[in-house]
Amino acid sequence: MRFTTTDTSPDGVVERDFTVGDVPGVLWSPPTPSDRAPLVLMAHGGGQHKRAPGILGRARRFAADCGFHVAALDAPGHGDRPRTAADEQHVAALRRAQAAGEPIGPVVVGLHLDLAARAVPEWRATLDALRDVTGGPVGFWGIMQGTGIGVPLVAAEPRIAAAVFGCLGHETLTDAAARITVPVEFLLQWDDELVARQSGLALFDAFASKEKTLHANAGGHADVPRFEVDSAVRFFTRHLGGALPPPA
Amino acid sequence: MRFTTTDTSPDGVVERDFTVGDVPGVLWSPPTPSDRAPLVLMAHGGGQHKRAPGILGRARRFAADCGFHVAALDAPGHGDRPRTAADEQHVAALRRAQAAGEPIGPVVVGLHLDLAARAVPEWRATLDALRDVTGGPVGFWGIMQGTGIGVPLVAAEPRIAAAVFGCLGHETLTDAAARITVPVEFLLQWDDELVARQSGLALFDAFASKEKTLHANAGGHADVPRFEVDSAVRFFTRHLGGALPPPA
Repeated sequence: MRFTTTDTSPDGVVERDFTVGDVPGVLWSPPTPSDRAPLVLMAHGGGQHKRAPGILGRARRFAADCGFHVAALDAPGHGDRPRTAADEQHVAALRRAQAAGEPIGPVVVGLHLDLAARAVPEWRATLDALRDVTGGPVGFWGIMQGTGIGVPLVAAEPRIAAAVFGCLGHETLTDAAARITVPVEFLLQWDDELVARQSGLALFDAFASKEKTLHANAGGHADVPRFEVDSAVRFFTRHLGGALPPPA
Repeated sequence: MRFTTTDTSPDGVVERDFTVGDVPGVLWSPPTPSDRAPLVLMAHGGGQHKRAPGILGRARRFAADCGFHVAALDAPGHGDRPRTAADEQHVAALRRAQAAGEPIGPVVVGLHLDLAARAVPEWRATLDALRDVTGGPVGFWGIMQGTGIGVPLVAAEPRIAAAVFGCLGHETLTDAAARITVPVEFLLQWDDELVARQSGLALFDAFASKEKTLHANAGGHADVPRFEVDSAVRFFTRHLGGALPPPA
């Protein structure tokens, strides 16, 4: 692991670019991290990257308000990483489905399988590399494509103690979900135009976790309410430790 | 409306017994209520009463931490109120179903219809009577039987601006739910042995509210997690105003 640049935001959050092998990532850390500060792995959505607005906002919030470290990677074929011919084909198929107003579930199955096969080892190598920097418990946050990668990752990686998933269905993920026993918070958009409701409910049902909570909100695929960020903060604070922020 | 007794708990919450007509109730108020302090109407579960532990704990919490007034009534045939012959028959039918391990949905349909027909006017009269005491926005909290009474109440009563329901199915409630447009937070126990999952999902689906959130938690009918109390606090604070408590 190699840290390349370091920046400090006005709220004191330290932001470091790094590479693990040839995978670029970002680590956000609180101004004065505790020895056992939790680490949250944050996986971006399809077509996005490690510094997409949704990642950046949550990462800074988690670091500044809760004292968490947060790590994000560019997924294979995303952000600063080259696209393979297979990546290009997946993207083209996805765009065709979206343009035709078709459900993306069947199309993302192959894409997510391919991405997860490459991304899971990358995330595990990142966890190995970060062990010297962040010594605390580990959580995972990723919705949509982040769930397509995250469910196989959390199923395979015993160091991850709690996970937020959502906005994706059960296609190909049922078996991995059934191996997950850590606490899960699962987001579902009740009127999702891209993910069938029953498919999302089936994925939630598949988790073997004794503690799992489904948060289903009225609205479409992109309408996840802002208060779900607060909920994720409380979920990780319950399960990983750390301090709850003062009420906004 | 007549206030009968007044008590103050160690945390400063003022607790007043009252009657509206012949219906006994309790009003919990913050130590120093603001003029526009929200009021939450809190309906207890079947076989319980206005001071059941789940009501008492939530009411004191809402009053002490959020500055809310909270009002609870004994439901018809519950607590300090006499049972009619019909009440006795309903209770006997419910006990038979529970003893036989049968779903209670079909049995509570008649019970809740009967209770709601009597309780909705009582709650509305209580709102009229409390207008001089509490001048702020109004919310409703009630799960299980509290939902059986609360859905018809919130559908009929335009003064109620936000509601927490849950742990009950759609039988007989669909039409009333479809008339509700205020924000709703709906609790569902994923492994509920008394309420069929699909029936609970159908009730959530029926609300016409643009903002509605389903919180489905792993566990049986009585296993609603304690953190849902915190969630209700934040829900009412978002929609009724008032101050969020400091993090526990």
